[in-house]
Amino acid sequence: MTVHTDALRDHACLIIHGPDRPGIVAAVSALITRNGGNILALDQYSDDPIGGAFFQRVVFHRPDLQAAIPEIEADLAKTITPLGLEWRLTDQSIPKRMAILVSTSDHCLLELLWRHRRGELPVTIPMVISNHTNTAEDVRSFGVPFFHVPSQGPDKAGAEAEIVKLLEGNVDFVVLARYMQILSDSFLEQIGVPVINIHHSFLPAFIGAAPYRKAKERGVKLIGATSHYVTKDLDEGPIIEQDTARVDHSHSAADLQERGAYVERAVLSRAVQWHAQDRVIRHGNHTIVF
Amino acid sequence: MTVHTDALRDHACLIIHGPDRPGIVAAVSALITRNGGNILALDQYSDDPIGGAFFQRVVFHRPDLQAAIPEIEADLAKTITPLGLEWRLTDQSIPKRMAILVSTSDHCLLELLWRHRRGELPVTIPMVISNHTNTAEDVRSFGVPFFHVPSQGPDKAGAEAEIVKLLEGNVDFVVLARYMQILSDSFLEQIGVPVINIHHSFLPAFIGAAPYRKAKERGVKLIGATSHYVTKDLDEGPIIEQDTARVDHSHSAADLQERGAYVERAVLSRAVQWHAQDRVIRHGNHTIVF
Amino acid sequence: MTVHTDALRDHACLIIHGPDRPGIVAAVSALITRNGGNILALDQYSDDPIGGAFFQRVVFHRPDLQAAIPEIEADLAKTITPLGLEWRLTDQSIPKRMAILVSTSDHCLLELLWRHRRGELPVTIPMVISNHTNTAEDVRSFGVPFFHVPSQGPDKAGAEAEIVKLLEGNVDFVVLARYMQILSDSFLEQIGVPVINIHHSFLPAFIGAAPYRKAKERGVKLIGATSHYVTKDLDEGPIIEQDTARVDHSHSAADLQERGAYVERAVLSRAVQWHAQDRVIRHGNHTIVF
Amino acid sequence: MTVHTDALRDHACLIIHGPDRPGIVAAVSALITRNGGNILALDQYSDDPIGGAFFQRVVFHRPDLQAAIPEIEADLAKTITPLGLEWRLTDQSIPKRMAILVSTSDHCLLELLWRHRRGELPVTIPMVISNHTNTAEDVRSFGVPFFHVPSQGPDKAGAEAEIVKLLEGNVDFVVLARYMQILSDSFLEQIGVPVINIHHSFLPAFIGAAPYRKAKERGVKLIGATSHYVTKDLDEGPIIEQDTARVDHSHSAADLQERGAYVERAVLSRAVQWHAQDRVIRHGNHTIVF
Repeated sequence: MTVHTDALRDHACLIIHGPDRPGIVAAVSALITRNGGNILALDQYSDDPIGGAFFQRVVFHRPDLQAAIPEIEADLAKTITPLGLEWRLTDQSIPKRMAILVSTSDHCLLELLWRHRRGELPVTIPMVISNHTNTAEDVRSFGVPFFHVPSQGPDKAGAEAEIVKLLEGNVDFVVLARYMQILSDSFLEQIGVPVINIHHSFLPAFIGAAPYRKAKERGVKLIGATSHYVTKDLDEGPIIEQDTARVDHSHSAADLQERGAYVERAVLSRAVQWHAQDRVIRHGNHTIVF
Repeated sequence: MTVHTDALRDHACLIIHGPDRPGIVAAVSALITRNGGNILALDQYSDDPIGGAFFQRVVFHRPDLQAAIPEIEADLAKTITPLGLEWRLTDQSIPKRMAILVSTSDHCLLELLWRHRRGELPVTIPMVISNHTNTAEDVRSFGVPFFHVPSQGPDKAGAEAEIVKLLEGNVDFVVLARYMQILSDSFLEQIGVPVINIHHSFLPAFIGAAPYRKAKERGVKLIGATSHYVTKDLDEGPIIEQDTARVDHSHSAADLQERGAYVERAVLSRAVQWHAQDRVIRHGNHTIVF
Repeated sequence: MTVHTDALRDHACLIIHGPDRPGIVAAVSALITRNGGNILALDQYSDDPIGGAFFQRVVFHRPDLQAAIPEIEADLAKTITPLGLEWRLTDQSIPKRMAILVSTSDHCLLELLWRHRRGELPVTIPMVISNHTNTAEDVRSFGVPFFHVPSQGPDKAGAEAEIVKLLEGNVDFVVLARYMQILSDSFLEQIGVPVINIHHSFLPAFIGAAPYRKAKERGVKLIGATSHYVTKDLDEGPIIEQDTARVDHSHSAADLQERGAYVERAVLSRAVQWHAQDRVIRHGNHTIVF
Repeated sequence: MTVHTDALRDHACLIIHGPDRPGIVAAVSALITRNGGNILALDQYSDDPIGGAFFQRVVFHRPDLQAAIPEIEADLAKTITPLGLEWRLTDQSIPKRMAILVSTSDHCLLELLWRHRRGELPVTIPMVISNHTNTAEDVRSFGVPFFHVPSQGPDKAGAEAEIVKLLEGNVDFVVLARYMQILSDSFLEQIGVPVINIHHSFLPAFIGAAPYRKAKERGVKLIGATSHYVTKDLDEGPIIEQDTARVDHSHSAADLQERGAYVERAVLSRAVQWHAQDRVIRHGNHTIVF
């Protein structure tokens, strides 16, 4: 059964991107109008009007949207595809299904569960998966299923296969809410949905393990956090959101970690919210966030 | 002689606002396309899709723009005006003419003059007017004319008349860069162009005189600054931009003033830049900043 | 049974304030040294070296502190009191007892419960009191007792008497974590411990009810939150901490409320942490936060 | 002739650091008191009370300070040196002499000159040295001597020798206000005074040349700036201050540079102010900033 968000009933989101050329905005606007839609919000960006890449996000209201989607898609295929553009049409009243992977730290996990319960994240959460059990009770108290998939040392194949089986067909994206296992390339290929990570530093500073310890050693005056899409290259994927917080000489590495936790959960929950609202477009190793 | 900014040659900015209704974006986009324009940037906002107010800013490139403006305006009058919408079309290569009024404090004044010299403000500065003379040398070292119009006590009529005479026909907007005289209603009517002020507090906190002293007395932990359009009601006009900075118990009122100066100049220069780029639309006592 | 925090065993915090005069720091340091203490942290502030008020906070380590406290206090009474100074000596290993009062909004409440569980707040939480029941289950899942004291309309006397009875002798301070009832003067006198409130605006802007609606109406570009000690004058007590977050024209009053919730919980939890660590000294309507 | 700042007449600043041990604060406070000083501000930090490093900064008022300095120093040598501590006593009314080295970018240079003119930097500026001439007129309009020392390609020896000759004996510290030449190790040794640099990124991200281009390529959502002491290892010296500003996908590398300029000048001027006020203590590759 698909969950619908009533406030967004009959709201469609159309994402368009591809090579820029004159007239795209007019063509798309005309298409929406002739299909009975009323534009509520429109964002548009071109990285170079001459020969650059074009990006657009339009939210429009169309009474009886579900029934109309096939013909709107047909129109898009007929008039927008020939312009060399890719497009994606979604019904905003259908929340995306988000799985959360977590290890022992609960701060990012709880922030997402709370914000979801407050109605701030347009998602459903079919499951939380962890290689530890300490968060099980908290997760289930939010009415969310919890699955324990223990790490199995250097050979990740077994654990990853088990996770793939849980995720397969059940989720639209995955959030690594401080999941301290490096995922294999084949895992990323198999699950086939976007994976969002939170890294506990202001990337590209302090790539890899123990960034707070490294930050203390370097004597930085700000700490940060970065949420990005996961790619095969560790900590190198497209950045969605970042933020920093002020620290000083008196903070130990443990203090940095405590303060950092608040930056991490804020940054990750913004990234998740924007992704769930179809506000983020990936373009090479960059993101356009509307 | 009109000054042109080469990088913006043939760039037009079209502002549209009025009651929302389906199809406005499509109608405007079609108009731009059929008049040979290519949309470079488009921002749009509706405060309520049903019966609300609609706001749009489009920047488009149109070869040989100057020659085309009359026919574009005719098209706008024919197709957009009947929708009950107001519109304003400007050639972005023509910088707005900005006058600065200042008293003794030089920090906001110098920030504007520097940023202008660095090419960050798309304006010309035909004059600086002050009721003091301490900034005259600095102003003239930037190649900008300086006029001294002394305050004349409670009766402002004479001084204001002199200022009106200097401004009349020569400027597109006026910036009060810490000009410590309250302007009369009739002055505002006579000059007939937008006036932007910087208030040295986070409005609506600390309205009126001596906000840093009041902030010290109240024991706030942040100070702020507010840039707004000037209306007849002191410190009540539409806010364009605000920001704050952290302070603590150890700061005297003089320290707050020193720190505040940096917030003031940042806030004012952002507000001026956005106004000069036609990014700000006034709507009642609010601003939409695209 | 008193709860002890092991990491802070034998750590004392000494707060001193009163009229400034030469030699206070030396006198206090000598006292600590001759009583076997080693200074770990020292903060000091004078609002005016000549005739001003002096404030000092010293944390020192003293083996077998509990046994030594009577003689240290006797020494303070003999050498520091005669200088006209007030002092307060606390054993940092004994957490303060904090009661939370809350209405229906759970964000500030949950932040405090969760930070407490993470070990970031040096307090015990003997009870949460609410005039509603919606947070009862959450509170009890943290192992904290929940008491429901319904509001009783305009006559608050009954409800307040019930709350006083619950608090009496059981708490060292009270936090109003979005408790939407105005407390009477006599209530404040009866409970006789500090009360910390979170106000959902950047005070002194938007005093009183519905600050987010007022913020939307005024068109501000930042929203804020303020944590302060409660006094008889509503929203006028000494400010402990404030912060702001950026908003724009597209945010509805409900959006401001959502964003504001995250500022509120951050501001309140910092204020509570500092109060619990004896970092905050009240001075008239101001606070010194070390 | 030594310049004196009247407001700081008879204000001494004493910096102490070395291995921590019980009783240091008491010993120092007693020393100041018995030498007729009244403590105005005291900051203290120990990175580990057991076997760690201790740092203290005390500002005290001593009537007729100049005459008393020899005997205070004798007392320090007799009572503090034997504790294994290093100390440094300065008369705060004597501003430090600061040279500025700059290339073509004027934003950091002008910020320093202008803040100095406003009285916010307790320094004198005996000279600005540049490998270009474009800032000469601006510098001299502030009444500051300007010396042109052209770069001479790969062999820096000649230019560096000329700069050493200008600086020698004339300055207490040097600021690289966007000086785009790498200084040789021997140059740093010869001048023998602290050198403060501004790097246009949030170090350790984007070490080396062209950080804004690298930031654009990486797609970061914040840009930053870092002020640090210069050591033999490029961009690796102890960090004094850092800050960041928000950017998004629509900003070109040139836009990042424009925004970054404002972060750079704020960060550098804070670092310079703190250094000039003797607030910064170097400890290995870290700074303690009081």
